[in-house]
Amino acid sequence: MAKTKKTPRPKAETPKGFRDYFGRDVAERKDMLDAIARVYHLYGFEALESSAVETVEALGKFLPDVDRPNEGVFAWEEDNDWLALRYDLTAPLARVYAQHRNDLPTPYRRYAMGPVWRNEKPGPGRFRQFYQCDADTVGTASVAADAEICMMLADALEAVGIERGDYVIRVNNRKVLNGVLEVAGIVEDDERTRGIVLRAIDKLDRLGPDGVRALLGKGRKDESGDYTEGAGLDHGAIAMILAFARPDSGPSGFVMKNDSGDALDMSLREICMRTAVGLAGLEELNDIERLVRRAGYGPDRIVIDPSVVRGLGYYTGPVFEAELTFEITDEKGRPRQFGSVAGGGRYDDLVKRFTGQAVPATGISIGVDRLLAALRAKGQLQGDGTGPVVVTVMDRDRMADYQAMAAELRAAGIRAEVYLGNPKNFGNQLKYADKRGSPLAIIQGSDEAERGVVQIKDLVLGAKIAETATLEEWKDQPAQFECSRADLLARVQERLQR
Amino acid sequence: MAKTKKTPRPKAETPKGFRDYFGRDVAERKDMLDAIARVYHLYGFEALESSAVETVEALGKFLPDVDRPNEGVFAWEEDNDWLALRYDLTAPLARVYAQHRNDLPTPYRRYAMGPVWRNEKPGPGRFRQFYQCDADTVGTASVAADAEICMMLADALEAVGIERGDYVIRVNNRKVLNGVLEVAGIVEDDERTRGIVLRAIDKLDRLGPDGVRALLGKGRKDESGDYTEGAGLDHGAIAMILAFARPDSGPSGFVMKNDSGDALDMSLREICMRTAVGLAGLEELNDIERLVRRAGYGPDRIVIDPSVVRGLGYYTGPVFEAELTFEITDEKGRPRQFGSVAGGGRYDDLVKRFTGQAVPATGISIGVDRLLAALRAKGQLQGDGTGPVVVTVMDRDRMADYQAMAAELRAAGIRAEVYLGNPKNFGNQLKYADKRGSPLAIIQGSDEAERGVVQIKDLVLGAKIAETATLEEWKDQPAQFECSRADLLARVQERLQR
Repeated sequence: MAKTKKTPRPKAETPKGFRDYFGRDVAERKDMLDAIARVYHLYGFEALESSAVETVEALGKFLPDVDRPNEGVFAWEEDNDWLALRYDLTAPLARVYAQHRNDLPTPYRRYAMGPVWRNEKPGPGRFRQFYQCDADTVGTASVAADAEICMMLADALEAVGIERGDYVIRVNNRKVLNGVLEVAGIVEDDERTRGIVLRAIDKLDRLGPDGVRALLGKGRKDESGDYTEGAGLDHGAIAMILAFARPDSGPSGFVMKNDSGDALDMSLREICMRTAVGLAGLEELNDIERLVRRAGYGPDRIVIDPSVVRGLGYYTGPVFEAELTFEITDEKGRPRQFGSVAGGGRYDDLVKRFTGQAVPATGISIGVDRLLAALRAKGQLQGDGTGPVVVTVMDRDRMADYQAMAAELRAAGIRAEVYLGNPKNFGNQLKYADKRGSPLAIIQGSDEAERGVVQIKDLVLGAKIAETATLEEWKDQPAQFECSRADLLARVQERLQR
Repeated sequence: MAKTKKTPRPKAETPKGFRDYFGRDVAERKDMLDAIARVYHLYGFEALESSAVETVEALGKFLPDVDRPNEGVFAWEEDNDWLALRYDLTAPLARVYAQHRNDLPTPYRRYAMGPVWRNEKPGPGRFRQFYQCDADTVGTASVAADAEICMMLADALEAVGIERGDYVIRVNNRKVLNGVLEVAGIVEDDERTRGIVLRAIDKLDRLGPDGVRALLGKGRKDESGDYTEGAGLDHGAIAMILAFARPDSGPSGFVMKNDSGDALDMSLREICMRTAVGLAGLEELNDIERLVRRAGYGPDRIVIDPSVVRGLGYYTGPVFEAELTFEITDEKGRPRQFGSVAGGGRYDDLVKRFTGQAVPATGISIGVDRLLAALRAKGQLQGDGTGPVVVTVMDRDRMADYQAMAAELRAAGIRAEVYLGNPKNFGNQLKYADKRGSPLAIIQGSDEAERGVVQIKDLVLGAKIAETATLEEWKDQPAQFECSRADLLARVQERLQR
């Protein structure tokens, strides 16, 4: 009988790195995404909800191998195909556009909101399933599309409750960096050096100028003793790149300073003008600036700013970053700017890997959790956190009466429910109402029923009274009062309006 | 060099059985689910969005084995754990309630809406990812919870646009069937016979009474020659069960359905009263009926109906089914009732497998695609299918002017965009506007710009004119007209209001 051993109970747990969202969290995110979707729709963007599951082949980038098929994605084999959960909303957009391009309008403006999955090591605040919210325009090389994305992003931030002055959208252009690299003597097909430079610039925040300087030069040994190979650039090239990565954002926006704070002999504009690609980058930035200003978006909302480097590596033209400029207090009590909540830019070859045909595209991705955290910090999340009015059960046989009361309240648009647990212990009913965040409890025992009245208990007021030492100020506002059954709805409405 | 062969281009295709949803489809489903969520919220239900990925252990039911780990679900191994995509919203609810039961109120009312995944053979209209929309009350055995679910479902159907009279919610009770089975001599722990009987009843629609009679008796050979073993019941038991399953046409003494819609016929009552479980089932049905009537829900909306057998096998008490009663025309042009769009009931032991503690629960699941199809059939899906006003580009250098026009329209809440494709061929711009379903196109060449005017082209009217043979009736309503640039917004508003 050894084989019939009892199966142990399963653990009631999400898999590591996954989580559930309850009530208010769901509602707040939904409200925010709805507001963003309204703006995107107004701009002519169409919703797209692509399949959550893709073939690994279509997702690209993460190709499975025998040893570790799931690098970065959740993937599994199915009928000799490798399937995977999407890791972002851009790779599926490429597949969708390639698949349906004959039916879709060109340019194709689309927005998408939904969960994506990453097979990464979970950590505090790092989950393996999270929301993304993207808008992209596929099929046009015009920078008017980039300008439009920036204006739409500004409108979206205001629509969710970020006030003007509390955000700024910074615009840069990858082509400007390419111009700088060219002047610094790094040739276009030197992928190795370009890669090291891009990764080094991206680490400026973390490593500081000395660390980046080491990476651009001979290489860098970190605290653990690990050695990272450097790009091997000379002093002049390093100074130029460092200056690009840390420009002084003065009114011109283009004055470069070296790391001792002295202005370089050459302005960024002068450097760029020496190369075709740098010049094209500058002209695109000028066009974008002209377009947004003419549409009424001033530098309080959208600025051209060559200090934007984040993500430059992924893009081929204009890049955008939305930063929240108000201060919050960090974990250690120090004030700091909230920082980035959205980023994007122009990327080509989106569809090319499917069709062989180059299709230019530009887009933006909002960090849903970051923006929610920002709204929470600003007290901008209303949500509907109010619990239902709870009709308590004093007399089990009169359940129909209680449900009729709740139905009457609901018919008037008031969130209401009857207590459906074991009614024996009345204290538990009030505890339940408390846990639900109920504003009011309705009570009708057989005595009240005979007299045709109900008791209304104001739980918000009751909690306040319980907190304060003196009852003086509450004397005129009793936390519980009686009214006729016929007046129930009117009195509840009256209380809720306070 | 044989090893460096070029990688073939990836196919731009969803995996088999998966699909994408575009624009209007996304919007229509969202509108419907939003309306349902508002009703559920009003009833005090809280949103829950659980993780899409669960451990196979927590999902239960589908346990992986070496040969075929993915039976019914999409599953994969991850760090020595088997993970899977949820196949419904009920199994995750059980896990969530067991995991968070100390923080959740009891009873816990929750609703959930989202995609689920089934690893089943795809077919026409059968997808491997689809939406579910559930509401459940966990932690109360009171039939008041069942009554509430039925009323809420009625309200939800009306909220999405199903008119009263076009639907009915039928309520039955698994315990009544249990009573019948007991009287028919099938003992409670005869799982084999009970299973055959339940499956046979479930096949009544497909096999007809003779097929079911065979399955209840000696067994049945289908057209292909395959033999299905029967329950081996005697004639009296078969007659009783058939009468239960087909109350309209039952043999004498077993007419169980009552056309006036109130309570139950005495015959079924007589059978049920012979057993404790049958009696309990009848009493529960009477309680539910009393509760919903008292809350104002008449038999035009909720009826007690012992002919509801679908799903009886899964439930332990009351069961519900929402049926749409209006006629549609099927593929062969024949009229038929639309049929079921939601089902549910009471199920116990939801949480028991995790905690060992029995937790009663009841709930409903709306078939999202079915209900959407019903609304489409009734012409109740408005969606916002209207495309944006398209500002065409006559002069590439005046893009800023065109974007300013679009911005002005959007500021007034009008969906608008500038054409961002190659503007060279003006015909393509109008074709694009047509593909987008645009109501109006705005045109301003250099001549118009100099004169301070714009052309407004009414594309809806233009299409109508193109369709009709005589232009007579359209004379007063030219499809294209000129107005001053300053009047653009006012004239667009005026046209859109028609």
